Amino acid sequence: MLNDDELATHRQELRRGTVVAACLVLLQQPNYGYALLTALEDAGFAVDANTLYPLLRRLEKQGLLTAEWNTDESRPRKFYVTSSEGAALARTLAADWNQLTTAFTALTEKP
Amino acid sequence: MLNDDELATHRQELRRGTVVAACLVLLQQPNYGYALLTALEDAGFAVDANTLYPLLRRLEKQGLLTAEWNTDESRPRKFYVTSSEGAALARTLAADWNQLTTAFTALTEKP
Repeated sequence: MLNDDELATHRQELRRGTVVAACLVLLQQPNYGYALLTALEDAGFAVDANTLYPLLRRLEKQGLLTAEWNTDESRPRKFYVTSSEGAALARTLAADWNQLTTAFTALTEKP
Repeated sequence: MLNDDELATHRQELRRGTVVAACLVLLQQPNYGYALLTALEDAGFAVDANTLYPLLRRLEKQGLLTAEWNTDESRPRKFYVTSSEGAALARTLAADWNQLTTAFTALTEKP
């Protein structure tokens, strides 16, 4: 029997790669972690803070995002923005996703 | 800089959840591992044998696939078929997939 955790894992695995693509698209407008979390949720890519923050650091380390501290307000915030390399990856992932979607649609529509 | 391994990892993460959905759809017709590997590749879901075989055992253990040995031919083969629970998960993943595609399209088409 499939338990709830296993169901959640299958659904998360489907979602995981799309969150990277969604971050890279959304961060073409600079933003900080918490606001991005909200924007992702609003856009239909709900993700835990415990997943998102390490992901942002990983993407920064890979040069897909650049980061800088904004100290204009009383609380300094780290803003991320998608690099040109990150924008290129977003295009690759979008093309892959389209291809996978077309392939899956063809499978499910087979007689 | 994004190296080739990192690029491959991002693309694999996008693909991983989709392979589960594709297996559950394809195995509504019973099939054995190697033939499924070929069918997945033909359908646009290329996957390594080293990834697929453990995945099939995991899906069987979760009750999403059932398996039986076919001994009609000289070489016995383990045939998998999607259970009703597996078919239900395939429908859930297909619905999630549609939702993610709609969400991602909306993001990328934003002005």
